[in-house]
Formats: sequence, C-alpha cells, structure tokens
Amino acid sequence: MRDDLRKNFASDNVTPACPAVMQAIADANNGNVPSYGHDDLSLTLNQRFGEVFEAEVTVFPVTTGTAANSLALSAMVPPYGSVLCDQSAHINNEEGGAPEFFTQGAKLVGIPSPEGRMDPASLPPTLQQNRSKGVLTPPFTALSLTQATEWGTTYACETIAELSEIAHEHGLTVHMDGARLGNAIAHLECSPADTTWKAGVDVLSFGGTKAGAMAAEAIVFFLNDRTRPMVEAMTRRIKRGGHLWSKQRFMTAQLLALLENDLWLENCRHANAMCQRLRHGLYRHPAVNLPFATESNEIFAVLPEAQVEQLRSEGYQFYTYPTPQGVPGRLVRFVTSFYTRPEDADALLESLIS
Amino acid sequence: MRDDLRKNFASDNVTPACPAVMQAIADANNGNVPSYGHDDLSLTLNQRFGEVFEAEVTVFPVTTGTAANSLALSAMVPPYGSVLCDQSAHINNEEGGAPEFFTQGAKLVGIPSPEGRMDPASLPPTLQQNRSKGVLTPPFTALSLTQATEWGTTYACETIAELSEIAHEHGLTVHMDGARLGNAIAHLECSPADTTWKAGVDVLSFGGTKAGAMAAEAIVFFLNDRTRPMVEAMTRRIKRGGHLWSKQRFMTAQLLALLENDLWLENCRHANAMCQRLRHGLYRHPAVNLPFATESNEIFAVLPEAQVEQLRSEGYQFYTYPTPQGVPGRLVRFVTSFYTRPEDADALLESLIS
Amino acid sequence: MRDDLRKNFASDNVTPACPAVMQAIADANNGNVPSYGHDDLSLTLNQRFGEVFEAEVTVFPVTTGTAANSLALSAMVPPYGSVLCDQSAHINNEEGGAPEFFTQGAKLVGIPSPEGRMDPASLPPTLQQNRSKGVLTPPFTALSLTQATEWGTTYACETIAELSEIAHEHGLTVHMDGARLGNAIAHLECSPADTTWKAGVDVLSFGGTKAGAMAAEAIVFFLNDRTRPMVEAMTRRIKRGGHLWSKQRFMTAQLLALLENDLWLENCRHANAMCQRLRHGLYRHPAVNLPFATESNEIFAVLPEAQVEQLRSEGYQFYTYPTPQGVPGRLVRFVTSFYTRPEDADALLESLIS
Amino acid sequence: MRDDLRKNFASDNVTPACPAVMQAIADANNGNVPSYGHDDLSLTLNQRFGEVFEAEVTVFPVTTGTAANSLALSAMVPPYGSVLCDQSAHINNEEGGAPEFFTQGAKLVGIPSPEGRMDPASLPPTLQQNRSKGVLTPPFTALSLTQATEWGTTYACETIAELSEIAHEHGLTVHMDGARLGNAIAHLECSPADTTWKAGVDVLSFGGTKAGAMAAEAIVFFLNDRTRPMVEAMTRRIKRGGHLWSKQRFMTAQLLALLENDLWLENCRHANAMCQRLRHGLYRHPAVNLPFATESNEIFAVLPEAQVEQLRSEGYQFYTYPTPQGVPGRLVRFVTSFYTRPEDADALLESLIS
Repeated sequence: MRDDLRKNFASDNVTPACPAVMQAIADANNGNVPSYGHDDLSLTLNQRFGEVFEAEVTVFPVTTGTAANSLALSAMVPPYGSVLCDQSAHINNEEGGAPEFFTQGAKLVGIPSPEGRMDPASLPPTLQQNRSKGVLTPPFTALSLTQATEWGTTYACETIAELSEIAHEHGLTVHMDGARLGNAIAHLECSPADTTWKAGVDVLSFGGTKAGAMAAEAIVFFLNDRTRPMVEAMTRRIKRGGHLWSKQRFMTAQLLALLENDLWLENCRHANAMCQRLRHGLYRHPAVNLPFATESNEIFAVLPEAQVEQLRSEGYQFYTYPTPQGVPGRLVRFVTSFYTRPEDADALLESLIS
Repeated sequence: MRDDLRKNFASDNVTPACPAVMQAIADANNGNVPSYGHDDLSLTLNQRFGEVFEAEVTVFPVTTGTAANSLALSAMVPPYGSVLCDQSAHINNEEGGAPEFFTQGAKLVGIPSPEGRMDPASLPPTLQQNRSKGVLTPPFTALSLTQATEWGTTYACETIAELSEIAHEHGLTVHMDGARLGNAIAHLECSPADTTWKAGVDVLSFGGTKAGAMAAEAIVFFLNDRTRPMVEAMTRRIKRGGHLWSKQRFMTAQLLALLENDLWLENCRHANAMCQRLRHGLYRHPAVNLPFATESNEIFAVLPEAQVEQLRSEGYQFYTYPTPQGVPGRLVRFVTSFYTRPEDADALLESLIS
Repeated sequence: MRDDLRKNFASDNVTPACPAVMQAIADANNGNVPSYGHDDLSLTLNQRFGEVFEAEVTVFPVTTGTAANSLALSAMVPPYGSVLCDQSAHINNEEGGAPEFFTQGAKLVGIPSPEGRMDPASLPPTLQQNRSKGVLTPPFTALSLTQATEWGTTYACETIAELSEIAHEHGLTVHMDGARLGNAIAHLECSPADTTWKAGVDVLSFGGTKAGAMAAEAIVFFLNDRTRPMVEAMTRRIKRGGHLWSKQRFMTAQLLALLENDLWLENCRHANAMCQRLRHGLYRHPAVNLPFATESNEIFAVLPEAQVEQLRSEGYQFYTYPTPQGVPGRLVRFVTSFYTRPEDADALLESLIS
Repeated sequence: MRDDLRKNFASDNVTPACPAVMQAIADANNGNVPSYGHDDLSLTLNQRFGEVFEAEVTVFPVTTGTAANSLALSAMVPPYGSVLCDQSAHINNEEGGAPEFFTQGAKLVGIPSPEGRMDPASLPPTLQQNRSKGVLTPPFTALSLTQATEWGTTYACETIAELSEIAHEHGLTVHMDGARLGNAIAHLECSPADTTWKAGVDVLSFGGTKAGAMAAEAIVFFLNDRTRPMVEAMTRRIKRGGHLWSKQRFMTAQLLALLENDLWLENCRHANAMCQRLRHGLYRHPAVNLPFATESNEIFAVLPEAQVEQLRSEGYQFYTYPTPQGVPGRLVRFVTSFYTRPEDADALLESLIS
C-alpha cells in the first residue's frame, strides 16, 4: 500500500470495496446460473430490501448512481415533462446529462437554496407558475431530493414529509437520490423507512458504491398506487440502457452483503465519525471557515490559499469550489469513508496546522 | 456445487468468472485511487490492447455487450442515420432497442442471409437504393458485422475485408460486434489484427464477459482518419449513459487479466473444443439435423420433439428457435464455454441417445 | 401556366391547393383571434370530424403526413416499444426516421407482403415470437396500416377488421396512415367510418394535403378506452415537436374546407378516375406490364427502357423503382390528383404509344 | 369584423396575415411544381435572404419559431452538450421542451439578468466552471441570444459583438432567436447585417409569423467555417422533424413577400410605433409603473389590480406575470403588431384612465 493512497479525500468513490463485499462476490462465483437476474440470489433481493425498509418494494440493481437516478426518473417523468430539484442536485450538475438522456429530454429545473435543502415554502409558487403556462412549459411530474445533500447537510424527516405532501398534492411523485443515504440515516439516527417512504418518498436511488460496494446501487420502488405502474417496464428500460448484466448475481451479491447486519450503516457511521474528527480539528483552526453544517461524510471549509497549496504539495487530493464573492480563501471539500482511519484524518489536520 | 449447474447450455453468459479474473479483481482492491478511470491500472489499457491488436487504439471499458455495441454505434451514426447489418444481428434483435436508444433513433436495417453472414454482393444494391431516396430515408453511415455470427458461423477474414471495402467506398464506417470474437479467432487460427482492423474494421466491441470475465467488455477504436473524430466525446457518451464507473479499476482489472497470456483465447479455444465434442456426438445421431457449420462455441441442431422434452425433464437448459417450415422437429441451440467440462458435454449427448 | 406543369406525375403532392381551400384560408384571415387553436374555427374541428366519421373523436391538425404519422405513433408506442407494419410502409421507408425520432427510438418492424397489404395470417407468429423474447426485444404495442397502400392497392374493410382484432387481442393498438384515405374510400365506396374505427382502427392520420389542401393533415383519435389516455398529452407532444401553430386557424380552415360537402372525397374520386383512365390506356399497350391492381390514384407499370427515356425527354416527371429481377423494363409510378385533367392523362398515353 | 378582435393585446401571434403575404400565397398556387423545396420559388430563397443580410447564407424555412429555434440548436449542439442563454429565453421557458427534444437531450442553462439581456461579464466565469467539471457536466457548445428580448428590450449591436467574441473564444457558436428581429432592427435603426453576422451571430431564427406571415420562419446560416458543417444535414433534420412541406412553395412565398421592399421592417416599425403610443399613455398614468425600457413591440406595466379587472371586463386580452415581491399591483404585458391601429391603442388607454 502506497502511503499517498491514504491522502485521497477527493470523494468516497476513490475507495476500494470493503472486505465483506469482496467475499460475497467470491462466494457468488459458483457454477452456471440463470442470467439476467433470474439466479437464486437475485430472486431474494426484493424481500431483503423489503425487510430493511419495512415495506413492499421492487428493486432493480445497477452499477452507478448516475444510472440509478436517471433510470428512476425515466420511469417517473415523460419526455415532455420536468423534474423539480435543488439547484445543487447531482442530477442537475454532475451526471453529464444522463437524466436528460434517459428521460429522453425532460427538463430539470433547479430551485436555489442556501445549503442544498429545498425550502417547502419555495415549492407552491414554482409549481403554480409551471401549471399556469400550460403547454408552453414542460409540466413538473417529479420532485427529486438528495439525502444527504450535496453540501454535506441532511433533510430532517419532517421536511421531507412536508415536501412530499406538496409534491403529491400537485400530482408529482417523489424521488430521493440516496447516493449517501446511509450517511444521512447514521446522522439522523432514524430508520431507513423514516426518511424514505414514511416521509412520502416514492422511488429511491439507494447508494451502495460509496458505502463499500465495488459498483452497486439499487433503484427501490416503494409500492403504492403511484409507483406500481412504473415498475412494469423497468427491466426493459434497464436492458435498453445496457445496464442489465448477464451475470447479475455479482451485482446482487454486493448489495446483499451491504445489507447483512446493517453493514452499510456501520460503514457510513464510521465515515461520518471520521468527518466529525476532521470538523473538530478544522473548527479550532483560526483561519478556517466552515460554511455549512457537517451532517454526513463531507465537510466544506474555506481555507487560506497557502494552506491549500501546502496540502496539495504533500500529495493530498480534494476538490475546490468557486468561493463566494468577497470571501478570502478557497472553498474545499474533504470526503471521508469507511476506509478512512483516524490517523488519516489526524495527518491531514496536522498538515494544515503546521 | 449443485449438479444441475452443469446442465445449463442456454448461453455462455450463465457462467461464473474464471479464476484469473477473480484474482485480478481481488488484487485491484487496494487502497484509494483516482476514480473514473484515472487510476494507474486503467491508464495502461490502451497500450495493452494495442499490443494484443498490433495497432494504435483507444479503448473504453463497459460492463455489457449491449452497452458496448450501442455506445460504439452512437459514435458512428448520427440520430438521423442508419446502420446496415445482418438480419440476425444481436443489435437488431436482442438488445431491447438499446442501439436505437443510444444513437437517439437511428434505424437498423437487416439484410437477410442464410447463415448470419452478409454476402458482399448484397451490399451495393442496398446502399445505392438508400442513396437514391435522398432525405426521405436515413442514410447508411455504418456497417455492423458480428464475428462469430449469431448462428455459430464465422466470417473469413477475406470476406470481412471485402465487406469493409464496399462500406468504406460508400462512406460507411465498419463496426464489429465481437461478443464472441475470441471464439472466432480460435476457429480461424488468425491473429486478432487479421480479423479486425487489417480487414477494415474501424470499431470493435470486444467481448470479455462470455470469455470469462465477471462483466467486462471494451469498445476498441482502431485509430484512423475515420475513427479519430469519434473518440473525443466517447467518455461523455459513456458518462451520459451511466456507464462510467467511479471504481473503474475493477472493470479494467478483468480485461487485463483476460489479455494476460492470451487467457481469453485459451478460454475460447476450450469452449470451441467442447462445442466440437458436442457436434461429433450429435452428428452421429440419426434423428438429429445440424443446419449450420459449427465454427465457434454455439451449435444449432434440429431435434425430435421427444428428445427435446427428455432433455428438459432431466434439467437441461437451452433455447429453442422457430423451426423452418416443413422441417420436422425443433431447432435448439447449445452453447459451451470455458467452464464446460468434457464430461458435461458427454452427459448431454448420453441423455440424447438414451 | 407553363405547359410542363401538367406533365408532372411524380406525386399528388406536386399539386397546388384546390380553390375551396384557398378561399377558406382567405376567409380565415380576419382579425385578431386567440392563438394555438383556441380560435372559434379550431374549436369546431372535433365536432366536424365527428360528423364525417360518425364517431366521438379528438382531432389534432398538423401540416405534414410525416408529422401526423410520427406524432400519432409517439402517443401509441413507448420509446422501448415496437411498431408492426408492412415492409413497404411510408413510415418505414420515406419519412427520414421521423417515427423513430418522435417515438424516441421505438423500432419499426416491417412484414413483407406482395402488394403492400399485410396478410392477417402473418401476424400471430410474428407477435408470438416477439413476446417470447421478453426484455431482449422491444414489444409490439402498435400495428400500423396504410390505406390506400404504397403500391396503389387498398385493404378491404373486412381485412382491416381482421388485422385489428388480432392486434387488439395481443395488446396492440391500431394506427392507420391515411395519407390517401380519400382515394381508398372512393375506390371501396364505403363510408369513412367503415374503413376506420368500425374496422378497429384507433388512431388515424387523415390526409388532406394530397386531397387538395395547401398543408393540412389531421391526427384523429377515435375515442375508446385504448385511445382516451393517449389524447391528454397530445398538445404537449405537438408543441414539443414545433408543430403547434400560433395562427392555427389557417390549418383548421383548410381541413374544414375539405370536409365541406365531401370535397376531399370528390377530389379523390376525380384523381382515381384519372388513374383508371391511365390504366385503360396502359393496359392496351403491348409492351407494358401492370404488376398491381389499381385501386387508388397511383398506377405502377413496367415500361420498356426506351419508353421511359422518351417520356423523360418530353418533360414528364415520375418516379422509378427497382425492377424485380428477371423482369425486362423499368418499374415506374404515375400519380394522378384532383388537378389532373383528362387531357393530361391522354397526352401521357399518347406519348407512350407514339 | 367583431369589435373585440381589436382588443387582443395578448401577443403579436393573434394577428391575421398581412395582405401582401396573402397575395403571395395566392400567386404561388399555380400548377404542379416539384415538391420538398425544389420549386423555382424556393430555389431563390438563399439569394434573396443573402441580399437582405448582405452575406452568403443558406436558409431553411419552417412554420413555427419553436421549430426554427430547436432545429437550429440541434445543428449547433450535440445531444451531450449544453446551450447557454438568458434565464428569460423563450427556448428555456415557452417552447414546451422542444429544444431538448430536437437536440435529443442537450441542457439549457439560463443566466439570470435584470432585463432579459445577458451581461458579457457573466459569461467567462460560467464558461470556466463548466469546463472545469469535465465529463461530469454537459459542455457549452452554443450561446443563444434573443433579439428583441422577452422583456421588450433590445441588445445593442456592440453588446452582441462582445458576447459573440467571448462565445467564439470558448468554442461556442452563436444563435440568435429573432422571433422579433424586425422589431429590434426598427428600434436600433441598424441594418439586418449589423445586429446579426457582423456582430458574430452564426445562426439566426428569422421571425416572419409575428411580422405578418401566416406561418413562416427561417433558419438562416451565415456561412463561415463554424456553420458550413452544420448545413449539410439540415434538410434531413427538418424532414425527420416532420417540417419539410411537400408544397413548400407556400412557405417560401410568405417569406419572399415579407422581404419584398422591406415589408417585414415596415410592419415592425408600425408595431413599435403603436407600442410607443401605449407607452406615452401609460407613462402619464400615476398608478402605472413601467419596469423596463420599451424597445420593441412589447410593453410591460405594473397596473393596479382594479385596472386589470376593468380591462378584462371590457374584453381586453393580455398576459399577466408574477409581480416582483413587495410591488403592489400586477405585472401585465401588452403586445402590438402591424395590425394594431392608433385607435386601438387609444381605446385601451382610455379604458385604463376611465
């Protein structure tokens, strides 16, 4: 193991797979089995997710968050429709146009918000204006929330419930981008059900890769009158997107391993703890400004330029962001993971202080 | 291992991954590394494929053959264009409309042929008629060949060269669906270069999954004046399709393991040998008719209905096809793989005879 | 008027608009009125078409047959679906990929037939094979018939009923490309209802342009449980396709003028009569072969090459087609219209004989 | 003529066609001519537009502004690309998702501005951030300006030149939505060339319908190294969109009539004058607030609610808009046209004052 591999705080997607996932993949490599998800392992997936989420669900595994989000939206929004989301949403900014591709041209409309969390009060006027324009504007048919958000914050379950209620009243269904759902749940200390379907979420992109999988996400439909019609054609959509593995057991095995004994939540709790460790250190640093609450495994900090250069020169990796006008220094993001050790966080802090 | 796992001749995609691939995946699971293909392993991919194909290439790994074919075609054909292929082509029949999705509505036009091999003589009239219709018909801009074909036959390298020459003369680029390329090469005893770019192929879908990978294919651009402009936006197309893995090293590792010491060809040679073993047994069976040459790892046979039922009742798995009118019996397909043992083939034959 | 304008038999779309249509356009040019089809004239369209077709209908005017067909299909077929049609269908060959564009990548599958008329017996095996392939193949969800056909023949109403019944039994809805519907009705001497919804047609592309309009077609939904859900989003689809005119009264006026006193049928009867006049002359010509029945306003004839050249040299315009192998001469098409005079047909025949 | 037809200030698209256009349509209704734009009239279109714009151009007529804008953008932006525009742009808000449809999923990104005019200073940071995100974000490949803007203002030619220069430096091509180009030119008292290609515009949507046509717009490519490659496939794109008329002479005739003796500019000058007449009246009204400059044929005014109701009760038609928070009253828009008479404007003002 090269030492610099521990200095990569760019994302939780730079990590390896966790040992239990690797073991599950190895265990699944056993003989000829029916392809395209008809193997015995894959046939247990709906039930297993149902237990974890305490709900009747239909689950479709895919390998990237971009595919999970985009395929989910393609079942929720017609090509002539629109998705309402926070302006910072991953679907709106970092998925290379995949939501537009899979929905076949639906429009994403981002609402500005200070911390990546939509304000329920901002929805009704936006929805009403959209309705008033008739055929001139693509109608909103889905609301997409990100939990945890792109700025490292989380939605309270009550806020999600409030947003969902407004959405449903206006005929929209509710999607949750849960690429870091485990981190949000670990922070909120709620159940998986509480922050999803019990708060009105209809369709979830369940994130596995950042929580320790090699490449495994799941599109989870919480079955109700709104979602049932969406499920039927999903396998066709997935096949058409080139996302139906012939040897699908290898995707399934990863997801089952993460669910076993709540490993995904354990991994996320560890990642969050490492992020709080960073926060405590950064907080004490006089020249560092922390613009957002740290409620998952991402921390944003405004650092003096010199400090940023220092870290880079030592081999640290992280992303920088446009710094709000007038604020001196540079906005950076550090992301921790199941793989971050306390000593890795401490070493980063030490480099900053020195 | 349950015994019936050895009775699955439905496809070469029901197989596990071969040991070397599993080892490579485990070896790649090592520390934090840059995501999205910027890891050290992935950066060697172009060179490694270049060595195997004795050419300058740019390679894009994906996890399914459907994605490889469809993404390749999306770079070769504008949305208002057309692809010429054999009527039996996988892209035309078994990819759930993925080529139409990724090309954004291009048209696939299938030429009928007796054994899945396009006849060079059939191209010029088809191309000329297409040209003569002007804007009324989507123009052909790509020719897609399947090597080995869907009926278990292979193209001679000279035939590919002939087809490519006609295509190039008419302004089409040439795509090869190589889901079973290794099987074709093993049969033809040619080099990978001979049956691809040396025969005029511009873009190859290199099949890894059926040759022993967990889920790994590669889109290979043989760099020339026609293909260079296609390469630039490929990573965007792949991201937009949700096919860019963050932990891409795990895709890369599989492909590198297959290329190491020509493992893919060795696996395919074994699969072909098992298929010939089946052929020899079937050939001697008086009630069995073998309509096609067996030049890869697929054998098609017309069996008496009773025999088909017998095999099914013993737990054998295989696909059946519409039998040509007037022919008594039923057309079935058996597919062998790197994982088929001689005793598995012999057991199938024994069941047939008894 | 230049003399050669009367020598154009290339299509019925080379014609001017008929006087009644021109007058209706002029009459509609009257003051400010609500745009996008909310004008008084446009609001009568459903009722007027309903009277003509003796049915409850919802009608959407557009300006081209390509738009009418493609928009209709986009409401009938999901992007991951398939359309079954005759191999000769205009949607399959002469609409520049528009059906694929508007359906967002659905697949058109053409069944071969001798005279452009699908044989009901050919449907069940095709539909069953499609179903048996599951997610690997885009499912058929619509059947598209052309009345009159591309080869100048017409379907008997009973045959349409038979085809529709099979389609409905298999879960497909039925589309009719009626670019030359009036010519078919004039030939069959049936009512507009008989050959459309009474024979099971769900959605009709009503052709106005070839029957005397400047540019006016109509998508006609015969309201039933299958079509009602399609209607809701049609105006959005039309707007999204750039086909919603602000000054839509000018489209409406043309259609209303054609329906007034059955002008469209009168125009088509005249066109058919002119075509029969041609047929009688051609039939007597010893070197001319007439491969198809002439049941509308198109006649196909195999002419000696010399004769073809002669006509061309005199300024005649018409299309030629690939001649069936082994047949000497050249397959040409002559199309008549409301604008063809008896003396125009006679002049053509005279040129041929001389 | 019903009196209330003169009370419609909702848009300049509620108008009839102007007499010269109607005459041109009637004149074009003359005999059989080649279809799909091969008629003699259509063949003069490039030259005629070239004279008006003092440039080498290739012109494609279509019938709606939505089609013109969307088809133009489809030639300028790949499906995986992005269009930069003002947040108020028609393409971004009122075209029912047509730009996304025709570009096959490209993303529109709107920059906020106070009066519908992009500030050149806002471009570089937006473009740089876009570039820095690599494959994660669809790259900007086109800038789209609206002249006159959606808020009734116009760009100075120098500002357009500045914006175009930045766009070109960053590899974007420049599109102008000129649905009301004539009104902008009439206001600026510049030449058509000045505010288009001489200011760096590559592709223009030339608006004819609002300037007096029945339904006629034109996509104008100013030929240069950037636009030449776009032109080749345009007819295919138009056909594929169902926008290629068989009797295209009727589209052409309208455009030629508008260009004859600068009729389009004369019509727009009249519309602007009527709008200024409204402005003078509204300006003197103590309770009326005029938030924007009036530089074309649209005037926006904040009226007391009672006044709005009064106008509505008298049969006046106009659009209302969300009023900025804290501003009392209601934001309304009045649009004048070639068809508005001085007495119509005066009657509206009188109703307001009484």
